[in-house]
Amino acid sequence: MKYIRKINYYETDGMRVVHHSNYIRFLEEARCYMLEKIGLPYSEIENQGFMIPVLEVNCKYKFPARFNDIIEIETNIAEFNGIHFIIEYTIFNSTTNKVCATATTKHCFTNSDLKPVSIKKLRPDLYDKFSLYK
Amino acid sequence: MKYIRKINYYETDGMRVVHHSNYIRFLEEARCYMLEKIGLPYSEIENQGFMIPVLEVNCKYKFPARFNDIIEIETNIAEFNGIHFIIEYTIFNSTTNKVCATATTKHCFTNSDLKPVSIKKLRPDLYDKFSLYK
Amino acid sequence: MKYIRKINYYETDGMRVVHHSNYIRFLEEARCYMLEKIGLPYSEIENQGFMIPVLEVNCKYKFPARFNDIIEIETNIAEFNGIHFIIEYTIFNSTTNKVCATATTKHCFTNSDLKPVSIKKLRPDLYDKFSLYK
Amino acid sequence: MKYIRKINYYETDGMRVVHHSNYIRFLEEARCYMLEKIGLPYSEIENQGFMIPVLEVNCKYKFPARFNDIIEIETNIAEFNGIHFIIEYTIFNSTTNKVCATATTKHCFTNSDLKPVSIKKLRPDLYDKFSLYK
Repeated sequence: MKYIRKINYYETDGMRVVHHSNYIRFLEEARCYMLEKIGLPYSEIENQGFMIPVLEVNCKYKFPARFNDIIEIETNIAEFNGIHFIIEYTIFNSTTNKVCATATTKHCFTNSDLKPVSIKKLRPDLYDKFSLYK
Repeated sequence: MKYIRKINYYETDGMRVVHHSNYIRFLEEARCYMLEKIGLPYSEIENQGFMIPVLEVNCKYKFPARFNDIIEIETNIAEFNGIHFIIEYTIFNSTTNKVCATATTKHCFTNSDLKPVSIKKLRPDLYDKFSLYK
Repeated sequence: MKYIRKINYYETDGMRVVHHSNYIRFLEEARCYMLEKIGLPYSEIENQGFMIPVLEVNCKYKFPARFNDIIEIETNIAEFNGIHFIIEYTIFNSTTNKVCATATTKHCFTNSDLKPVSIKKLRPDLYDKFSLYK
Repeated sequence: MKYIRKINYYETDGMRVVHHSNYIRFLEEARCYMLEKIGLPYSEIENQGFMIPVLEVNCKYKFPARFNDIIEIETNIAEFNGIHFIIEYTIFNSTTNKVCATATTKHCFTNSDLKPVSIKKLRPDLYDKFSLYK
């Protein structure tokens, strides 16, 4: 699953490169794109009373992206046990042909009060859909 | 009413100055600070079922602020008729002794569905408090 | 000239709508898109030693956009005299069929030290290109 | 070293809690604060031709912070070998008395072209200052 977008001027900082915090936002964009493509759009998940907060973020920065560069984010569900899941990402700069960053994020499903829930028990249909892509 | 804060690195852009969109965020900080100081903290307003969306923003940029500069934001309620109100701001850079920007924002009170309400009718106590500072 | 993009989750705030400061960023995206389409990409302008700072922003907010909504931004060069120019914008929410916001931004050309310059004198070719779209 | 700040409205997202990407920005604020307190303000480091890019970020999210909450960020230089260094952080929410997040960031010193340099060789004085706080 590949998500593609351009770097905006307001995403650069005083070093004239993308501020490192913005890659964490790009990961979210790529994750939402992936969830939509596998038939589980995040807006639908929220409408059904679930949330998918971020439990952990790891990001290794390689080569900085700059204004107007095109980045491609490859996402992959690395682990899923019905409660937690881990997504892996590679952010590739197709303007410079270099990897910008690699990252993982860890998540769980919660109810709307942010209490963790087992999607396997509550919504076996969502569980099955998700498991397919692991 | 004067709100003071430092410029963060992530608030600068590729020109090595504060990105112009961030001043709009600084105005919000100064506005919340002012509301708190006059006894109407925004969190309390929200808890009582009201919201204060922004209807209009005008900002004139004079001299850019840079990383680590200290800015002081003067706020003033310029107009208030129980439905709408206008706040005026001057953002002064005390590191360079120059005015960064002057701005106004226009607001109304709404219920939690973002429908405009007359605070004068619904909450004369809030109306009176607010009127004092006009 | 129409620039189209989706609303990201991180662009919403505690009211579950796009934070008002983010529209100012969307205007920049649309402006860069327009400059590219008329043959004056901003990265090229910067490479030639010019900058286009924002002198003034006016934004009137109508109906809020939410996560996943698609917005379309219409841009138009309203004034240009070789020194200053004004761009007008309409941000249309094509998910809700409502206008989110209308806005104008005022700019000038500067050198890399942020001193205003007359593009008409310094670069009549850029001046002509720009004038075509007024 | 403890850095204290309030949560702004624009830092919350549609879940009405601080967006996870913003904690990465708070870490930068706390890091700059620490560097200043130990006599190595980041602006001075940049003026001397050095930069301190972020090589890696790890953040574990515990309990979300909300608008107006006060957070306290404890920072600590965990490793330093003259080339790389690692900073550890605990973000404590003093409004709720809960830990929001724990994090580490990895950095190196580079020249202004973002090439890694040995601060130990180039600037033994900075090296000594930094080593004191390891």
